[in-house]
Amino acid sequence: MTTTVTDGVSRLFPDGVLVTDPDIVATYAVDQSRLTSRGQPWAVASPRDTDEVAACLRVAHAHRIPVVTRGAGSGLSGGANAPDGSVVLSTHRMDRVLEIDVADRVAVVQPGVVTGRLRDAVAERGLFYPPDPGSVAFSTIGGNIATNAGGMCCLKYGVTGDFVRALEVVLADGSVMRTGTRTRKGVAGLDLTRLFVGSEGSLAVITEATVRLLPAPGPALTLVATFGSLAAAGRAIAAVQAAGVDLSLLELLDRTTVGAIEASTPLGFDPGVAAVLLAQSDADTSPEQLARAATLLRSTGAVDVMAAEDAQEAGLLLEARRRALPALEALGDWLLDDVCVPPSRIVDLIAGIEEIAARVGLTIGVFGHVGDGNMHPTVIYDAQSASSTAAARTAFDDITGLALSLGGTITGEHGVGRLKTAWLERELDPVALRLQADLKRTVDPRGILNPGSVIAPAHPTST
Amino acid sequence: MTTTVTDGVSRLFPDGVLVTDPDIVATYAVDQSRLTSRGQPWAVASPRDTDEVAACLRVAHAHRIPVVTRGAGSGLSGGANAPDGSVVLSTHRMDRVLEIDVADRVAVVQPGVVTGRLRDAVAERGLFYPPDPGSVAFSTIGGNIATNAGGMCCLKYGVTGDFVRALEVVLADGSVMRTGTRTRKGVAGLDLTRLFVGSEGSLAVITEATVRLLPAPGPALTLVATFGSLAAAGRAIAAVQAAGVDLSLLELLDRTTVGAIEASTPLGFDPGVAAVLLAQSDADTSPEQLARAATLLRSTGAVDVMAAEDAQEAGLLLEARRRALPALEALGDWLLDDVCVPPSRIVDLIAGIEEIAARVGLTIGVFGHVGDGNMHPTVIYDAQSASSTAAARTAFDDITGLALSLGGTITGEHGVGRLKTAWLERELDPVALRLQADLKRTVDPRGILNPGSVIAPAHPTST
Repeated sequence: MTTTVTDGVSRLFPDGVLVTDPDIVATYAVDQSRLTSRGQPWAVASPRDTDEVAACLRVAHAHRIPVVTRGAGSGLSGGANAPDGSVVLSTHRMDRVLEIDVADRVAVVQPGVVTGRLRDAVAERGLFYPPDPGSVAFSTIGGNIATNAGGMCCLKYGVTGDFVRALEVVLADGSVMRTGTRTRKGVAGLDLTRLFVGSEGSLAVITEATVRLLPAPGPALTLVATFGSLAAAGRAIAAVQAAGVDLSLLELLDRTTVGAIEASTPLGFDPGVAAVLLAQSDADTSPEQLARAATLLRSTGAVDVMAAEDAQEAGLLLEARRRALPALEALGDWLLDDVCVPPSRIVDLIAGIEEIAARVGLTIGVFGHVGDGNMHPTVIYDAQSASSTAAARTAFDDITGLALSLGGTITGEHGVGRLKTAWLERELDPVALRLQADLKRTVDPRGILNPGSVIAPAHPTST
Repeated sequence: MTTTVTDGVSRLFPDGVLVTDPDIVATYAVDQSRLTSRGQPWAVASPRDTDEVAACLRVAHAHRIPVVTRGAGSGLSGGANAPDGSVVLSTHRMDRVLEIDVADRVAVVQPGVVTGRLRDAVAERGLFYPPDPGSVAFSTIGGNIATNAGGMCCLKYGVTGDFVRALEVVLADGSVMRTGTRTRKGVAGLDLTRLFVGSEGSLAVITEATVRLLPAPGPALTLVATFGSLAAAGRAIAAVQAAGVDLSLLELLDRTTVGAIEASTPLGFDPGVAAVLLAQSDADTSPEQLARAATLLRSTGAVDVMAAEDAQEAGLLLEARRRALPALEALGDWLLDDVCVPPSRIVDLIAGIEEIAARVGLTIGVFGHVGDGNMHPTVIYDAQSASSTAAARTAFDDITGLALSLGGTITGEHGVGRLKTAWLERELDPVALRLQADLKRTVDPRGILNPGSVIAPAHPTST
């Protein structure tokens, strides 16, 4: 089904909100994902407030026009890819931090606020908004909530959803509602807040969020350790966690990723290194704690353990982590996966991915949030070659299947989007799938919100 | 509508599961709430496994028999009060801890496991399951999940829902599904786990839960401070929180509660005390931290600050908190509220409750989780007197309304149950209420699960 939209319909949108110029609209058509289905949206709507969002949705609902909500378009699963004839609802004009309440430690924000800007704004008041997805410098809080985004902070602090206290949302028919509370606890009725968190634009448009804040932590203790074998790195991960060391970050780069970094902008890692672990603690940063952590790492087989003397040196050590994806990108086209396994299976996952890389004949770099078991295997391929692309798809699917077989999940933090709808059917059982679809139909009976993504049918319903 | 159940129907239940002896059934008819609607259930079903739960629900669904799921029956909102002609589904036979995985820090449990037993079992393995509702020694993990129970740990660790990774549930029609993951992160599809958490038996029967565990914390630092005025206690609460002291417990007893404790089993508090604060930290327990916290409390007006020298002394200090409800109970019949306000409004809440007590002419003791703004005002009245009962209801409603007017919620951790269904309609907006009802109808189309509780209509639907 294709939706045909007439000029008459465009005049029903609020003044100054709709753009239908195809050149402009095309720039809003896709997110940062690869190999995901995409179309030609009809228009971009950029509402300035909740009332305008509601007005847009009323029109779309009446005329069964698909609506794809878009924050920064930095998603990696195709959740913001717009289908043919759709309206892309961009939140970029709704970008105000409405309130920072120091006493109650909450902030109230519009969805288009860039997450890094929120973090900076609360830091000026001595507070801390932990969620830090890789895209933190440019992605929006609305997008982060819609995907329940993670990041490096999750090991200690949890994911975006753990910081969302309350939401204002606009439902598909344009009705506006609030859910959740400003209080620290609250159990009045079904938890609709958590239902909207991570729903990837398939249930509602988020127009305001109340997020909880923490006291700002002190400067962190930063360690980098290198390992001659993956098994040794695995033992080190298990050992620091079993010892109850209160880590605020634990990231891993595999052999391939370290090699890619050294090939682009060398940081001085030994080319024989099998894995690099980066660890931070913002809790106990005493010299005793440092010595204890370093001893633990060495005793489990670390070849080298380096500690940052100050924040600048810590920044340099973490630079290796930040360079992981750019360094892999320099090797060719890339397809980024996002699987999560129980921590005890992390070595099995990485070893299995090495086997998959050998089998398909492609380079696959693995890096990510190893403390949470949430890794981003990145398949390098040549998009100009059909056989290389096919091999990349095979590797991607094999990695996702491997994670499931290890008791893991198909997506730890990037979401299902359009990339993994078929995989969702393998992760969930038939009853759960049916219930997901039933709930989607209840909240958005005409199926206009992000059709074709997550659990949503590909087109609005005509009935 | 009353449901008439025939002997023929009872034979459809699995062997050895159903009891219809009225004397036995009557003991399963109500929870620990007061002034809540209640009926005469027809039978008690005590299934031994998920298959038997499913079989019970298939029969109930086919015959539109209301089903009220019951853990320990220790709820305080009437969520386990059974209506006329219903089946009480008791989880007491499903009480096994199925697995404790030390490496991945998860436990898999059946719903009937008493929460204190789970805490003990994981403690033996050096791990920690934080949720500690007041009923922790006798309430079940299934009931805790169904109400998203809180406790004293929430200030630092969060509520029960924050520890639930995955669930197996049986839906109203007897179909079995799983939701969530064993992994630390996971965003595959809508978050149905959180939808079931806190749904108070209105959406499904929980038959298995995977909960996350933490490393066991060390012994805690315990302080008790007394205050000559409520305002001074309020300043102290704000000061310790603003200073970022990492507290694992912060509880308050008001003047009335302290008086009741001293009247029953004296702990030696000055009768002129306006408030007592109890604080614990399981993070930094150094003498410096102790001195810092004590100085903060004194500088904001504490009359007396006592620190426990050891675990035994800490236990004695916390005894005052444990005696709060028993001491108030000794004064007469009681009606326990459970409101939560933003932390900055806690003094306004307690002062307002003092005014309400004076106005209605009843004693109201206030104690609870002050660090979270979640208090349990307890109205003392004479259930034999119609006028006293009416005054108690008025006080209860005025307190709940006061919490709402202070930006709070009608229930912080006890749930809506049958006690606050009318209040739910005041807390939620009409769109949210409609969506809650729509979702309930989608998951339980015949309305057999806990009818009359939370958002559920009072009777199964006949259509």
